[in-house]
Amino acid sequence: MAFLPAEIIKAKRNGQALSDDEISEFILGYARGQIPDYQMSALLMATFFKGMTTQETLSLTKAMLHSGEVVDLSSVSGFKVDKHSTGGVGDKTSLILGPIVAAAGVPVPMISGRGLGHTGGTLDKLEAIPGFNTQKSLPEFVELVGKHLICFIGQTKEICPADKKIYALRDVTATVESLPLICASIMSKKLAEGIDGLVLDVKYGTGAFMKTPVLAEELAVNLMSIARGYGKKVTALLTNMDQPLGRYSGNSLEVEECVAIMKNEKFIGAAGYDLYEDTRELSLRLSAHMLLLAGKGPNEEACYQLAVEVLRSGKALAKFEELCQIHGGNLSALPQPKHHLPLVSDKSGFIQGFHTESIGVAGIIIRAGRAQTTDIIAPTAGVEFHVKVGDEVKAGEPIFTLHGDDKDLLQSAVPLLKSAVNISLQKPAKPSLIIKTLL
Amino acid sequence: MAFLPAEIIKAKRNGQALSDDEISEFILGYARGQIPDYQMSALLMATFFKGMTTQETLSLTKAMLHSGEVVDLSSVSGFKVDKHSTGGVGDKTSLILGPIVAAAGVPVPMISGRGLGHTGGTLDKLEAIPGFNTQKSLPEFVELVGKHLICFIGQTKEICPADKKIYALRDVTATVESLPLICASIMSKKLAEGIDGLVLDVKYGTGAFMKTPVLAEELAVNLMSIARGYGKKVTALLTNMDQPLGRYSGNSLEVEECVAIMKNEKFIGAAGYDLYEDTRELSLRLSAHMLLLAGKGPNEEACYQLAVEVLRSGKALAKFEELCQIHGGNLSALPQPKHHLPLVSDKSGFIQGFHTESIGVAGIIIRAGRAQTTDIIAPTAGVEFHVKVGDEVKAGEPIFTLHGDDKDLLQSAVPLLKSAVNISLQKPAKPSLIIKTLL
Repeated sequence: MAFLPAEIIKAKRNGQALSDDEISEFILGYARGQIPDYQMSALLMATFFKGMTTQETLSLTKAMLHSGEVVDLSSVSGFKVDKHSTGGVGDKTSLILGPIVAAAGVPVPMISGRGLGHTGGTLDKLEAIPGFNTQKSLPEFVELVGKHLICFIGQTKEICPADKKIYALRDVTATVESLPLICASIMSKKLAEGIDGLVLDVKYGTGAFMKTPVLAEELAVNLMSIARGYGKKVTALLTNMDQPLGRYSGNSLEVEECVAIMKNEKFIGAAGYDLYEDTRELSLRLSAHMLLLAGKGPNEEACYQLAVEVLRSGKALAKFEELCQIHGGNLSALPQPKHHLPLVSDKSGFIQGFHTESIGVAGIIIRAGRAQTTDIIAPTAGVEFHVKVGDEVKAGEPIFTLHGDDKDLLQSAVPLLKSAVNISLQKPAKPSLIIKTLL
Repeated sequence: MAFLPAEIIKAKRNGQALSDDEISEFILGYARGQIPDYQMSALLMATFFKGMTTQETLSLTKAMLHSGEVVDLSSVSGFKVDKHSTGGVGDKTSLILGPIVAAAGVPVPMISGRGLGHTGGTLDKLEAIPGFNTQKSLPEFVELVGKHLICFIGQTKEICPADKKIYALRDVTATVESLPLICASIMSKKLAEGIDGLVLDVKYGTGAFMKTPVLAEELAVNLMSIARGYGKKVTALLTNMDQPLGRYSGNSLEVEECVAIMKNEKFIGAAGYDLYEDTRELSLRLSAHMLLLAGKGPNEEACYQLAVEVLRSGKALAKFEELCQIHGGNLSALPQPKHHLPLVSDKSGFIQGFHTESIGVAGIIIRAGRAQTTDIIAPTAGVEFHVKVGDEVKAGEPIFTLHGDDKDLLQSAVPLLKSAVNISLQKPAKPSLIIKTLL
């Protein structure tokens, strides 16, 4: 090794920018087990305090990317595009936009994650469909993307092993909340997919990792600069996560919502509007930007109309059914929760806001989500949202319904869920779903 | 465990003060192997950036102290006093002040360290005396202090095991330079000796850990507040380490210098003054403060006169010979270096200053010191200093002489040693040896 690990830690600790070689040797040395955990955790904490330049973050991303394989999609013709969301509650757009974009003729190679903490994961949602198998080898993945223009797999051991090892360490050393570390972790995995373009859904609010639009924009700008540093086309949307997205959170329930949307169904709630509306709209907008990056239209609106048409025509649903078939999933056998526990409002007023992260944590309690990576998911467990911010609610009317197979677990989540909604007499404005698009 | 280690790391990372219980659980959990190195290194780096309050530093010291045994010196009557130096080049005062203070009737229980990096260690100096054995059990140590009022041992495995483990980790994670960590490490070991009072020799300058008087004073104040938090009497002297102390650095050579001083010898150098003077004076001043803490006189000057008298009378030498006997050392067999390599000045002028740390590193090259704890010391290797800051030197006159048994090694240290002295035409003032006494 050309560099002493302790000297690299010291340089970062003293606020110096590390060279590409220094970062590369440290990260790859760690991935190979030549640098111990305790030196990596010291470097991570020093990075938490001293940050990284754009150039360093690019080097870090590159080192993590090169710790494993990059999927070779050169055999697949066309502009390969994916979407990444920073995570939220009820965030199920991948299940709709993937089929829309693929049905419009654009390859969508999706390497997705599982839920951890208060946010859900695409793989868990898909695996709520009986038989749906996301464990495919990288050659199978390439073949299926070529043939069907869409395939969903989980992160394999070949993809960014350094990121996997570093992420586990960050989790137990209080070094998760570092912008360069977050950016490199996200982007190394996305770049490993072999994509040409990426649409970022960067969420802000009480259910998002970034609590304010300013922080979300900072993250978006950093992610975009890495993507561009790799010559990828990229667009970012800053979207609201001050309330859950759509009608449901919970794995089989979210699949049900997505299928209903792809069947062009509506679900009119007590407040008189379609509770699928925000999920549909965000999926269409993200689809539009993916199609725009792929050159499927002259501007956003044209691509939006294309996405609307693919959805309306039933082609998105057909592509989703094809996807289920590829992965061995039996959509008609989607399990239904056995128990339903409505939570009614104690008082009358307007929904001021939600503490959306608490709703996600209530999801962990009922096993719709995971506290630890080893936790087992209950596919039918979830929460239904009857009202949204700005809606009027009367005492005794339902706000949430808890769904699942274990009555006692549902009951145990009630106090947290009750505390997650704020009702008062003043009518607030309805929040915008998308506040900014960064092109 | 009542606390999650990651939550404690996060609290420190966020700048919160940790409770006594949190620090205690973390440190003792680490010492027992229940908390892994990677979490400790993250906490150390967070502490580097966020510091610790006085209360936290006291808690840290207590936890490290209680990770092992505290020597019980209650069987030894009198006020037990020790000295701690923050380390320098040619710093040999323990070998003189220990015998002076003990000969004056005050017990001196010394648990000393070995040299590491550019600074020397008392144990290495004593072990240059053939047969001198510093490996004694704690009960033997207590017995010998009781009987002879002085004994030197190394840190045993019973003393502050948490500090030993943490220090090794700090060394490889760039977390050495943290004031609370330094203070707790020093003070936990000193408190474990079972002393009643402590005199601190806090050095500043090019050969010291703290480069400026301001930083040295900050360290001194922090060390003193911990000592007082434990009800110990404490005095600190801020002393100059912009040049080596005395005539020699190197283990057998320093013993020779100390014995010569205790024999009331002088060594007049080319500049016409005694090259033992600074070693003698600092030893006497530190002795005076130790005697003052022990109540052996009404004020510093009276205690200084007592120390001078003990030295002059030969009682200090007799005590040192007694000490050698206790430890099995044969002082008359002190080895002599086989080779002597003088370094002469290239030009004429005045000694402006030394880069004293480089002189220490030259000492490592010739094996008078250690780069790593596992390095083996060459007892006779060392450097002789012919001139001091402010002295005039002519081209061709000696500045240093390298001593040792390995000619080639001596030669290899020449370039570094040559670069460690700065000569120019303007005559600088002679620096003060002691610039401040903190009572």
